[in-house]
Amino acid sequence: MKNAVNREIPQELIDAGWEPFQGNEYRANYEYTKVGPKVRANVVLHGDKVVDSIEEAIRKCGLKDGMTVSFHHHFRDGDYVIDMVMRTIAAMGFKDIKLATTSIGKSADVVADYIEEGIVTGLTTSGIRDRIGEAVSHGKLKEPAILRTHGGRIRAIETGELHIDVAFIGAPTSDPYGNASGKGGKSDCGGLSYALADARYADKVVVITDTLVPFPNKPCSIEGIDVDYVVVVDEIGNPKKIASAAARITTDPRELSIAESCVDVIAALPYFKDGFNYQTGVGGSSIATLLFLKKKLQEAGIKINSVIGGISTPMVEMMNEGYIRCIADTQDFDTGAVASFRSTDRHFEISCSEYANPMNKGAFVNMLDYVVLSALEVDTDFNVNVITGSDGVLRGAPGGHPDTAACAKCCIIVAPLIRGRIPTICDKVVTVTTPGDSIGIVVTDYGIAVNPKRQDLVDALKAAGIKTMTIQELRDIAYSIVGTPDPVQFEDRVVAIIEARDGTVMDVVRQVKPYTFD
Amino acid sequence: MKNAVNREIPQELIDAGWEPFQGNEYRANYEYTKVGPKVRANVVLHGDKVVDSIEEAIRKCGLKDGMTVSFHHHFRDGDYVIDMVMRTIAAMGFKDIKLATTSIGKSADVVADYIEEGIVTGLTTSGIRDRIGEAVSHGKLKEPAILRTHGGRIRAIETGELHIDVAFIGAPTSDPYGNASGKGGKSDCGGLSYALADARYADKVVVITDTLVPFPNKPCSIEGIDVDYVVVVDEIGNPKKIASAAARITTDPRELSIAESCVDVIAALPYFKDGFNYQTGVGGSSIATLLFLKKKLQEAGIKINSVIGGISTPMVEMMNEGYIRCIADTQDFDTGAVASFRSTDRHFEISCSEYANPMNKGAFVNMLDYVVLSALEVDTDFNVNVITGSDGVLRGAPGGHPDTAACAKCCIIVAPLIRGRIPTICDKVVTVTTPGDSIGIVVTDYGIAVNPKRQDLVDALKAAGIKTMTIQELRDIAYSIVGTPDPVQFEDRVVAIIEARDGTVMDVVRQVKPYTFD
Repeated sequence: MKNAVNREIPQELIDAGWEPFQGNEYRANYEYTKVGPKVRANVVLHGDKVVDSIEEAIRKCGLKDGMTVSFHHHFRDGDYVIDMVMRTIAAMGFKDIKLATTSIGKSADVVADYIEEGIVTGLTTSGIRDRIGEAVSHGKLKEPAILRTHGGRIRAIETGELHIDVAFIGAPTSDPYGNASGKGGKSDCGGLSYALADARYADKVVVITDTLVPFPNKPCSIEGIDVDYVVVVDEIGNPKKIASAAARITTDPRELSIAESCVDVIAALPYFKDGFNYQTGVGGSSIATLLFLKKKLQEAGIKINSVIGGISTPMVEMMNEGYIRCIADTQDFDTGAVASFRSTDRHFEISCSEYANPMNKGAFVNMLDYVVLSALEVDTDFNVNVITGSDGVLRGAPGGHPDTAACAKCCIIVAPLIRGRIPTICDKVVTVTTPGDSIGIVVTDYGIAVNPKRQDLVDALKAAGIKTMTIQELRDIAYSIVGTPDPVQFEDRVVAIIEARDGTVMDVVRQVKPYTFD
Repeated sequence: MKNAVNREIPQELIDAGWEPFQGNEYRANYEYTKVGPKVRANVVLHGDKVVDSIEEAIRKCGLKDGMTVSFHHHFRDGDYVIDMVMRTIAAMGFKDIKLATTSIGKSADVVADYIEEGIVTGLTTSGIRDRIGEAVSHGKLKEPAILRTHGGRIRAIETGELHIDVAFIGAPTSDPYGNASGKGGKSDCGGLSYALADARYADKVVVITDTLVPFPNKPCSIEGIDVDYVVVVDEIGNPKKIASAAARITTDPRELSIAESCVDVIAALPYFKDGFNYQTGVGGSSIATLLFLKKKLQEAGIKINSVIGGISTPMVEMMNEGYIRCIADTQDFDTGAVASFRSTDRHFEISCSEYANPMNKGAFVNMLDYVVLSALEVDTDFNVNVITGSDGVLRGAPGGHPDTAACAKCCIIVAPLIRGRIPTICDKVVTVTTPGDSIGIVVTDYGIAVNPKRQDLVDALKAAGIKTMTIQELRDIAYSIVGTPDPVQFEDRVVAIIEARDGTVMDVVRQVKPYTFD
């Protein structure tokens, strides 16, 4: 059966109860009853919840083969928690464990071994990279991995599709009662947005910290009322990799040029008025738009109301300089963002549900005017791929991409037309992570294409005298330079399901196959 | 069947599934699955949630006869919201409505009429006063009212015993997306702790504000992701009655003397060491303990770690003077508390579940060293009554009394031995709200009695040279002055169930009967 982005959804998934993607608004006004965790009441616990070791916490939580454990990715490549916990789980002899991470990468490389050994047999995540991506793409994981958007993960937790038995939450500070925060300590990471749902919905919750502080550790992100045990370890991560030095805006002339074109587009649209809400990614041309926005904002005498999502220093600086009223933060990427998060109420945490959950009563993404996002590939239907590389291997993160793209009044994709020898604009993306209907405009170093379904945007750019071309013209230029790419070759086996934010199936990823000449 | 405080629980309640109270720790480690609300997803709502009127919000929420609506009491006697909404509900012709309030009093007097008219047929609350108390006590409400503790209300919501169909949440500020706060606006009330569970667990949530502010109204107490509709009205309350001028410590010599004795007791116990956690009520001798504590803290060179619960200016002053490290706030009683709540992270909001829920993984009350509470009556089993007056009429609030008393290492009751012609210490309280096992010490103006079940406290006071007497001796003095009181006379009909914090039945209140001479 083909879904709304023309992808074939295998019958085996339909038979298993999956629905094909049927458009961004298919589940508008969907009604459901939120689930809740199983709780053991601490009616009379007056002391503390500190246990001696991760092993003891695991034992007390009653972990069993086949259960689901969760982790957050706020410590990024500096994370020690998932490695520590998974090594302990493996050493204790558990098998058939399902991982529910908010993203997973290099710091969890050991999990690739556990996938091969059958210790880990399931994985749901919003991002996948490095050895784990390779292992899954090569068919080593017993069950297909499920790739969810940030908003989709919370949706799945709250609807009961994703049940977490034990959440392990690394926290830079915690008090002995489990009130835990991303602020302070040796490994300050700012907010803990992605972990909030795990704390509220997992049956058992273990906080792992390297800095025990006196009760009450308030205000905090993780509430002690949801926490069963606290484990104190030497180090939860490498602070240098958790919060790196301040991010700098790119100096790459091509990226800057794309960013400048993007800002011309932004300023030409009717949403460019005082108090618009804005999101950018954190790399390359996307964050560089801020540089050019300043001038446009000054000229127009207007301000940005809020920037939301993952935060880095350039955004903080713009808030401090008066260009941005406030920052709604789901993740801090550098020391500047962490410091700002700690110091002002105008830079505040929002939970991942507040950020992007399509199934609550209205998330922050719904209020976005613009989101500027990157892409690995965009096809002539404007479908975007941010998950599989040109070799078909999983190495990316839907994250908030499909959530913000679906909701913002205008989603702009910024990308170089060609990367290395790979065309970004192509006939058919390897994997659809974000449906073409979500995309308004694509800005490349060779030209700008507007989604013809958005006549309002076509008109606005025309009125502003901004030259555009068709997406097919952009593809043709790309192909004329690097040639028409051969399709990536896959085995039949489905190794990952790309879930749309509403829980339907956007696409599947199949096992990679060594390249063969036809 | 008699329960653990020797009260006869009517067979009709047992038959209906109620369990008699069986001691504070009967449900220790109780396991249950939290419920969740029915949610209608706002997948594509990009605009705002503002509707034109309370009537429109009620219609859109699909209110039906027999449903349960909820209100919070943060605006106290200055509240206009419950009156506005209930008049609208009545005018729209609904009947058989159940009220789930966090407390209810004079500002909701109109509800007494609706009780008589059958428009309101059920009531669960943590406090009841004025005309509504009279109406219930005179048997006008169709179903017995259920009196829950603050912690017990959240427990009942999270276990599903109390399901709220529509929550009406008055908020001093809200943005058009429903992010709502007790801070700012015309009617600043500080925190909104008691309303947080209503927002998270009611199927439909309506925010009512008189001050619409731009999106995003953050940080906030009520999250827009839980809110269906926002109604803007002229006034949500009378600011003078919401936050009164700064509370002053009593100048009544009898109350001061009791407070001073209480502090002697506090300082004589082993919990009097740096970093203890403390709670007092807000009136009379209870809050006056702060005055005498200052000197003791200075002498000992120690500080209070936290004060928790309902907050007034004397506590804020002590924090600012360095006697108290932080304030965990569930309610602000005066302008000084409201101002402090707005201005420092050391004075922070905790949800009512964080405060006192016996069925989460550990509430703040569990960490209390001392709580100093008042009482209408204390009997020779140390059982306390804070709900029925000497005429048997409902006019009080269990509130956090049974929660804090059960959990604090030492609960001290401060009360004058006699009020008017009524003895405080008596053979048998009219109604048990707080079981004697929760009470450590009773301090009166005629002497101090220690619960003989607390030999540790007996020993500590003895070692400190503090004179005590038995509770029977105190009763005898009281009776010798005012005579032995005649028992209050009741009809058979149960008009209210006093629920213990864990959901079992502590006592029942029966319909009052005109006094007759035997």
